[in-house]
Amino acid sequence: MNKRLSNRAMIDHHCHAVVTRDLARDEFEDMISESFAPAPLGTSHWDKPVGLAIRRWCAPVLDLPKFASGEEYIARRLELGAGEVNERFLKQSGITAYVVDTGNRPGLLCSYEELGNAADVPSYEVVRMESVAEEVMRAGCDAKGYADAFEAAVEASLHDRVVGLKTIVAYRSTLRIDQTAPNRNEIEAAASGWLTEIEETGTIRIGDEVLERHILWTGADIARQKGLPIQFHIGLGDPDVEVHACDPSHLTGYFRAVEPWGVPMTLLHCYPFHREAGLLAENFPNIYFDVGFVQNWAGPSYRKMMEEALELAPFTKQLFSTDAFGLSELFYLGTMRFRDSLDAVLDHWIELDECTPDYAEQIKTWISGQNAERIYGLSG
Amino acid sequence: MNKRLSNRAMIDHHCHAVVTRDLARDEFEDMISESFAPAPLGTSHWDKPVGLAIRRWCAPVLDLPKFASGEEYIARRLELGAGEVNERFLKQSGITAYVVDTGNRPGLLCSYEELGNAADVPSYEVVRMESVAEEVMRAGCDAKGYADAFEAAVEASLHDRVVGLKTIVAYRSTLRIDQTAPNRNEIEAAASGWLTEIEETGTIRIGDEVLERHILWTGADIARQKGLPIQFHIGLGDPDVEVHACDPSHLTGYFRAVEPWGVPMTLLHCYPFHREAGLLAENFPNIYFDVGFVQNWAGPSYRKMMEEALELAPFTKQLFSTDAFGLSELFYLGTMRFRDSLDAVLDHWIELDECTPDYAEQIKTWISGQNAERIYGLSG
Amino acid sequence: MNKRLSNRAMIDHHCHAVVTRDLARDEFEDMISESFAPAPLGTSHWDKPVGLAIRRWCAPVLDLPKFASGEEYIARRLELGAGEVNERFLKQSGITAYVVDTGNRPGLLCSYEELGNAADVPSYEVVRMESVAEEVMRAGCDAKGYADAFEAAVEASLHDRVVGLKTIVAYRSTLRIDQTAPNRNEIEAAASGWLTEIEETGTIRIGDEVLERHILWTGADIARQKGLPIQFHIGLGDPDVEVHACDPSHLTGYFRAVEPWGVPMTLLHCYPFHREAGLLAENFPNIYFDVGFVQNWAGPSYRKMMEEALELAPFTKQLFSTDAFGLSELFYLGTMRFRDSLDAVLDHWIELDECTPDYAEQIKTWISGQNAERIYGLSG
Repeated sequence: MNKRLSNRAMIDHHCHAVVTRDLARDEFEDMISESFAPAPLGTSHWDKPVGLAIRRWCAPVLDLPKFASGEEYIARRLELGAGEVNERFLKQSGITAYVVDTGNRPGLLCSYEELGNAADVPSYEVVRMESVAEEVMRAGCDAKGYADAFEAAVEASLHDRVVGLKTIVAYRSTLRIDQTAPNRNEIEAAASGWLTEIEETGTIRIGDEVLERHILWTGADIARQKGLPIQFHIGLGDPDVEVHACDPSHLTGYFRAVEPWGVPMTLLHCYPFHREAGLLAENFPNIYFDVGFVQNWAGPSYRKMMEEALELAPFTKQLFSTDAFGLSELFYLGTMRFRDSLDAVLDHWIELDECTPDYAEQIKTWISGQNAERIYGLSG
Repeated sequence: MNKRLSNRAMIDHHCHAVVTRDLARDEFEDMISESFAPAPLGTSHWDKPVGLAIRRWCAPVLDLPKFASGEEYIARRLELGAGEVNERFLKQSGITAYVVDTGNRPGLLCSYEELGNAADVPSYEVVRMESVAEEVMRAGCDAKGYADAFEAAVEASLHDRVVGLKTIVAYRSTLRIDQTAPNRNEIEAAASGWLTEIEETGTIRIGDEVLERHILWTGADIARQKGLPIQFHIGLGDPDVEVHACDPSHLTGYFRAVEPWGVPMTLLHCYPFHREAGLLAENFPNIYFDVGFVQNWAGPSYRKMMEEALELAPFTKQLFSTDAFGLSELFYLGTMRFRDSLDAVLDHWIELDECTPDYAEQIKTWISGQNAERIYGLSG
Repeated sequence: MNKRLSNRAMIDHHCHAVVTRDLARDEFEDMISESFAPAPLGTSHWDKPVGLAIRRWCAPVLDLPKFASGEEYIARRLELGAGEVNERFLKQSGITAYVVDTGNRPGLLCSYEELGNAADVPSYEVVRMESVAEEVMRAGCDAKGYADAFEAAVEASLHDRVVGLKTIVAYRSTLRIDQTAPNRNEIEAAASGWLTEIEETGTIRIGDEVLERHILWTGADIARQKGLPIQFHIGLGDPDVEVHACDPSHLTGYFRAVEPWGVPMTLLHCYPFHREAGLLAENFPNIYFDVGFVQNWAGPSYRKMMEEALELAPFTKQLFSTDAFGLSELFYLGTMRFRDSLDAVLDHWIELDECTPDYAEQIKTWISGQNAERIYGLSG
């Protein structure tokens, strides 16, 4: 890795943990796809930018030649064992702290502590509020008691390694919703509807717009009291996402209303709305953003997102994330892509005499970790 | 043309036929404009990227110096005659098969067979479902019988050179519509409304949202039974398009619902939503896309669209098209732009040590023709 | 500045005037922010692309070394005095005429005549119709008389240096509105609602959708009669903007309806919808656009916007603007960014043998000033 960066904090402010058992070929390939389905007949999930990037950059970390085939890669991964594989990628990523969303398929992944231990660096938790709401219903709750039970459950989840809240409202009701806080009666009616749905379907999955608005507003209120940031899923995702309705500017009314509360709000991944995210970061003092996930997924094209992210927004408002999920490769690759692209853009600025080397270092220090340290209050 | 590509299938999976009679100056200039109006006073349709590109790249094919003026170009085109001009551009394009949308102004253009014959390559037809619906009304049909008559007419149109269906729902009701199938009563009421409109206006033009939803769902059902793909107009177009409502992610609900049917769905041109199209191609196994048309229209800037198209989507999901209409120049230019940009991006990847030469060849083979051959079932 | 451009008209077709008194540090820093709030604790408004660009490019104009600190910059600015500072930046910008929107915080800024006098070049006025409407209410008007009073006030504002009208409908009701003209009863009811709001809040700020539609249609009618263009705020702005709803293609229905009137309509700044703006400029003979403002704000990344602006649209439809507001630096910087990027893109086209040097000069002449001269009818 780049020596110039060796002493800089690299805070992965949005990631998930890894799978610690060995992954069969189809399981691994599922994890390099955002689809819920296998690749179409005659095609393979390897044949996309992220598959090519793993063959190029991750294979050598497992002692394979660069561009080893997918089959060779899976075989070598099994030969080494998941423990060794994860340790190599996590340690070589150079990440100095993890801020982990623990709400997505926790049974599949290790805990945030195990992730930190495997890399020998501090790790922190972010509480996914939709998971808390679903847990409240799983534990049993009536419609009248739901609002209080949810609030109590969020507060109860805030142990001393929790450094933020998160909402996936984008996935559940989209961001194109009424921007105001619902009242108690509306929440009770919506909770009642959800209870009926649970009874009918046997599945507990929050999705109602009123309940999501309750999460947004209650979350902001708790975050304000506790001094925590809130993370927002924005833009691209799996087939549950309707992308046009996940443009972060759909939340402008909400951002405007809660601005005086001073709660840092971080817009995650953002692609293809990273320009819109940069504008919001310029317009509102409490808005932050990253271009995580897509730099992993974009393979050789990873630089464009960083160029676009650096167009307008204050350098003090951009963050670093890998959005790695399951595969330790994505921590390694995502960090490499982030660093290389930030180096490349700023080196180009220096070459054009548009920036000094010292100020470029300052920008890297901010975006790589210092901005996250400041807003999440990380202390080791 | 590039020798490396000489043996590769180049399947133009979305194009229209050409005009076979000589074109007067104003007719030619109309065809390098997406506007319905003449250029404003003091300006000319030549003074845009596609006009500049024709002067640079097409003039020499007609034995003119590069950058000949528009006037010289038109004069030489008339001198050679449309037959000779078309043969030169079509044969020199290197396209190995045409998949032709025959539903747009068929009286102006030659048939798909004539197009294939002029270039001495196979040609296939795609049935534009809106044209079938309008033909059904033209032939005479009552509201109650419309749904069955439409289905029967689509099925009747499927001769053995038809390899796909197409919808221009984007133009008629936009993509921002109810995503479910309408029921028989709704269709009958909508057909009745359309009949009234026809009587009042004397014009037969489908546009009702319910009738468009019927096309989407009936089309998918017929396509499933017959093993055909469906093409969707996406993004930019003529002044009838309301661009923001032609983002393909407006169709997410529909794509999600029909995914199990396994019908390949191809998103055409897509600009400025090619990033969104790439995401859909990643999320849904049956979604494919191209950046045709815009590479013709973008003149010297044609590379950016290819760079953006290659950011995320599987290499097995992108297709090649020119979207040429009327002018044989656009087959030549569109193919040149497509090839040069794909070569340039992949050469750059090889230079960065992000891709091997062999795998780059594989990617080109897929996108240039093999993906289209696979989903359209082309056999010669 | 570039000698090749020295004799070319540089018409800044959209700008505001400057502050002529000395600016304290916090006042200056507010003006390099689109936020309504101070920078978050531990950060500074200087630490963003436009701040870096001012330190790099404007500091030397004030005899400071390049990359002088923000503190040094402010101190030197005060030392020289606003008059000297403004004269240096305005004269060295090379702008040959100003078209000034005088409707935004006129008390803070000098007049359009003073701006022209400071630079010793002609200056013209654009009438912001929302300001006229608010002035009508401030002067006193009943609901029934509002429509006529507004029309009369717009007409009365058209002295002989007025060369266009402007609407900020994007800011007030967004562009996602009913595209038709309201009738007299609707306008009267809306005006009545506005009067009630004024009485209740003590604030006069137009925002109602019906009243904005009245502005759009009445404005177009007056513009047609007087031969004036209309300017439209598009895309990015301050926190009052909801960006997704300021995509200019939301106005497609209106543009389509008024196209026969032949009124030139200019889409301002447009980012991040400059591709959409380019499409509209291709589709409608009366639509024009610029990528002003964002080239100032984008710092070292200013070239991308020009590359994207030049993708599709006719060269006779793009315009130059700085959208400078308050700070004379933004005239200097915006003009430099515009020129450098246009030079860079066209030099690259020449290098690729995609354009001749002569035609590149023609394109520069059109976009830098001749297009604006033609549609605004500028005569000195």
